Amino acid sequence: MNNWKSALTSLLKIEYPIVQAPMLGVTTPEMVAAVANEGGLGSLPIGGLSPSQTVELIRKTKTLTQKPFAVNLFANSVGEPIPEDVIAMQDFLEKFCLENQIPYEKKPIDTFRYYSYTEQIDILLSEDIPIVSFTFGMLNDESIQALKNKGVVLIGTATCVKEGKLLEEKGIDVVVAQGIEAGGHRGTFLEDEPLPMVGLMSLLPKMVSHVSVPVIAAGGIYDGRTIHAAFSLGAQGVQPGTAFVASDESAAIASYKSALNQAKDTDTVLTKSFSGRWARGIRNKFISAVDSSGLTIPAYPFQISLAASIRAHANQRNDKECTALWAGQSASKAEAKPAAEIFRNMVREVEEIQEK
Amino acid sequence: MNNWKSALTSLLKIEYPIVQAPMLGVTTPEMVAAVANEGGLGSLPIGGLSPSQTVELIRKTKTLTQKPFAVNLFANSVGEPIPEDVIAMQDFLEKFCLENQIPYEKKPIDTFRYYSYTEQIDILLSEDIPIVSFTFGMLNDESIQALKNKGVVLIGTATCVKEGKLLEEKGIDVVVAQGIEAGGHRGTFLEDEPLPMVGLMSLLPKMVSHVSVPVIAAGGIYDGRTIHAAFSLGAQGVQPGTAFVASDESAAIASYKSALNQAKDTDTVLTKSFSGRWARGIRNKFISAVDSSGLTIPAYPFQISLAASIRAHANQRNDKECTALWAGQSASKAEAKPAAEIFRNMVREVEEIQEK
Repeated sequence: MNNWKSALTSLLKIEYPIVQAPMLGVTTPEMVAAVANEGGLGSLPIGGLSPSQTVELIRKTKTLTQKPFAVNLFANSVGEPIPEDVIAMQDFLEKFCLENQIPYEKKPIDTFRYYSYTEQIDILLSEDIPIVSFTFGMLNDESIQALKNKGVVLIGTATCVKEGKLLEEKGIDVVVAQGIEAGGHRGTFLEDEPLPMVGLMSLLPKMVSHVSVPVIAAGGIYDGRTIHAAFSLGAQGVQPGTAFVASDESAAIASYKSALNQAKDTDTVLTKSFSGRWARGIRNKFISAVDSSGLTIPAYPFQISLAASIRAHANQRNDKECTALWAGQSASKAEAKPAAEIFRNMVREVEEIQEK
Repeated sequence: MNNWKSALTSLLKIEYPIVQAPMLGVTTPEMVAAVANEGGLGSLPIGGLSPSQTVELIRKTKTLTQKPFAVNLFANSVGEPIPEDVIAMQDFLEKFCLENQIPYEKKPIDTFRYYSYTEQIDILLSEDIPIVSFTFGMLNDESIQALKNKGVVLIGTATCVKEGKLLEEKGIDVVVAQGIEAGGHRGTFLEDEPLPMVGLMSLLPKMVSHVSVPVIAAGGIYDGRTIHAAFSLGAQGVQPGTAFVASDESAAIASYKSALNQAKDTDTVLTKSFSGRWARGIRNKFISAVDSSGLTIPAYPFQISLAASIRAHANQRNDKECTALWAGQSASKAEAKPAAEIFRNMVREVEEIQEK
């Protein structure tokens, strides 16, 4: 299909400019490979993982596809935890767990080990990863230079025009414009300003007119109509995420997958409760409890560590009330099908619209 | 242009399904007539106005156009003010005004006179208004019946699918799907639930698939691309608002118009500070002061009354810091041109896209 060709498809060496969003905890090597094998861009999330996990996931994905795929980093820096906030949150979570028959162990915050993306760059280089996307911040100059020297294509995430322009100034090749509709974590990295909450219908045409690099649209994208609309607004690519959460290759638990289908347009909320960073998910017991606690939620990634065992326990028991149900505002459109079929349906629907 | 014809254009008896959003305080009879004369749907806002002002504005508009236009009502009911909240807010505003050299008189809340839309229905009937749109609620059954008996087309406003379905169940002919991008007041009327904050990219395709009546898209609409995208998502019409605020026919003060052009995508906020109802506008001194006061803002329309003299004073002095600068997230795209030219540019741009 000639209609699919653009500067973006040439740059990424893919057939269709449809990017499966990186979703840590949900995306598997199988999902990435399924999308890559169909001619799209699969994205393997490795944000915050250890070097050994990083290598393992990349190599696993390579056994499943010969096609290029992207690896996604968390480009944040790790600050210092505020001890009294951590202690207050641990006390609260301990009480929450007691009330809900969940085991909880209060570990000293300095026993948690955090990995920086800077520990992953060398692995990406030695594994010949052709495309690196990132969110939660800006890669440092050294990392950008090292990746660019090797010809790696870089994709950054922006939630407002100012962030998009900063990415372009740093030489990032492609900008993902993440509308407020999007599920999961906000890519926001200008932390001294109020959280940008711009709908894709406003964000996308503005981003396209303010940056000269190709723009990928994220947020509310799930079918031919939404992809076509994003292209109409000037996007060269689209990044559906929630649309793949219910796929066969997804690591999401069964109750999470069925919660998607039942989600009304008003059932998702922005919350810091699971991670200390703003993210959109379906409202549940854990979110309601933490967000109404009145406590200061420790910053990312400390809150992640404090809540990790609760989420793991809930995932084991298929309990949707105490794990993160990341989902965008079009969550109900997620379908329980193989990822390849979900992908092919999007391609077919866009082609049908274009042929009209 | 055959491409423009739809069930909606037939129903409304207009040439182009582009509706100038009703914007109380900004929209003038001249603006309504300019859009109507170009073949679009002008909307005359009369929410909360007295019967005599209602008649006057309608008759003025009729002298300027022979074409059909819509009249827009506020379909809310008026509750009882909470005296202690009103008094605390008046004290706060008095102090704010003192600090900012603005005159302020604390009037007893029971001296304010509120008009209900029910006092306007007979006027609309006797003035042969062909189209009535409304927001902030649902018209009561008696009003719906009276208007329908006379063949009036009814357009309701919804900010989530549930509201859209309620409108359809009551026999409303057309639903405006108001995305979170939209400027001015939210049309939300399910008040016991959290404020719906759904981006148009999610809201619009969902609304279209859940109601069988024509849907008009509102929020972030300002040019050919955004109109075409809305049509791609299933809208039969679009309702740009902020795009007309800087027009020659607008009643907006000069500093408001120029604030639009300078607005970044993150400069608008949702606030109850001016009216007691959620509305999107450009952040300024008044919003910051009231929203950070920690006070409970009296419900609509009481807060409107408490702040009215401050806004009037600011408008007289062209002071953008103390009046409402209602604007959507694409505010910067508003152009200082005649409304007819703004309208014609939209039509031309859409036709150019359709011809490609």
